[in-house]
Amino acid sequence: MRGMTRRDWTDKLRVYLVTDDRPDHEEVVAIVEQALAGGVTCVQLRRKQEDGGPMLKLAVRLRELASAHGALFIVNDRLDIALLSDADGVHVGQTDLPASLVKSRFPELVVGVSARSVDEAVRAEQDGADYLGVGSVYPTATKGDAVLTGLDVLAACRRAVRIPIVGIGGITVDRAPEVMAAGANGVAVVSAIMSAPDPKAAAAALAQRTSL
Amino acid sequence: MRGMTRRDWTDKLRVYLVTDDRPDHEEVVAIVEQALAGGVTCVQLRRKQEDGGPMLKLAVRLRELASAHGALFIVNDRLDIALLSDADGVHVGQTDLPASLVKSRFPELVVGVSARSVDEAVRAEQDGADYLGVGSVYPTATKGDAVLTGLDVLAACRRAVRIPIVGIGGITVDRAPEVMAAGANGVAVVSAIMSAPDPKAAAAALAQRTSL
Repeated sequence: MRGMTRRDWTDKLRVYLVTDDRPDHEEVVAIVEQALAGGVTCVQLRRKQEDGGPMLKLAVRLRELASAHGALFIVNDRLDIALLSDADGVHVGQTDLPASLVKSRFPELVVGVSARSVDEAVRAEQDGADYLGVGSVYPTATKGDAVLTGLDVLAACRRAVRIPIVGIGGITVDRAPEVMAAGANGVAVVSAIMSAPDPKAAAAALAQRTSL
Repeated sequence: MRGMTRRDWTDKLRVYLVTDDRPDHEEVVAIVEQALAGGVTCVQLRRKQEDGGPMLKLAVRLRELASAHGALFIVNDRLDIALLSDADGVHVGQTDLPASLVKSRFPELVVGVSARSVDEAVRAEQDGADYLGVGSVYPTATKGDAVLTGLDVLAACRRAVRIPIVGIGGITVDRAPEVMAAGANGVAVVSAIMSAPDPKAAAAALAQRTSL
């Protein structure tokens, strides 16, 4: 957060890129760089299949790229890699490290929590989460065990909590406006950018369709 | 290390239990408790298949048990879980987080490094490792990708570095004395205790066969 106001960093959640598990780091770095140039405001490193050594190397590279573009850099699940790469924050799922403990021990970190229901959203806010990732808003192939929430749960979470909400799961450029209209502060995507023929153009389109 | 002298904590490496990946936490806790009662001096939590949430819960329980028996508690790979569970240290493999970085950021932690050769052992010592796990000394089914080093590499590592060395991989009660004779300060085992019909007796036998 480093001197950013709440409004500043909330705005950084608007176009939120989550990386995929492709093995080639050079590909990941190239896509993230394009995406940042296109208008991505937050990069989350999510690597479910990788050991800590290579993941940390990738984190350090993405941290630099994000900083160079004034974007947030968040690490999924691995608080240790967030700390060692000087990330802005960590994003935890319901079976990852508890947000309350992370926040109490490392208050300087932005802590995001995945929520699939209003109950989970309210509990996460009580636990000290700084923002929520709510979804899966649409069906998605990226995360096999994802629960489909639809836009209704997102809208209900918006009414139930005060912290910023990012919609996630199956979001495309065309669907982005209705996710924002349901009350999201931003849209998180994996394949809409990571698998786009032109990641920079995809990011630019998402930035344009999410601006208020 | 909390006021322990180097000799104190080196002696704590003598009977070193590494947990397995069995899903049932109650089983793990029960075996570790038996093993500590039998004479285990160090417990390493190693969970390659588990999310951070449940792993942290297990870590907190094992941390308490280890403390109650005056044993060290170490977490494999997940520095974050080591920090949040107040572990004594973290153990990293060659593709895990770099020992040098962990040690420079968290100097109060004991950092162990797995080494499969004299080169890796010397580098780990230069990186600031507090102890080495050298192996696999014997063939093992526990870790499919383990490199077989034999006792010769362990003896060569002993001559090449000054930090304590724990032998690991396929070590049984009967083999423990020759591992110590090759220069090890302790023996690390998974199945010799985790799969023993009587974990307490197995730990006691290892403690007896490793005492100098």
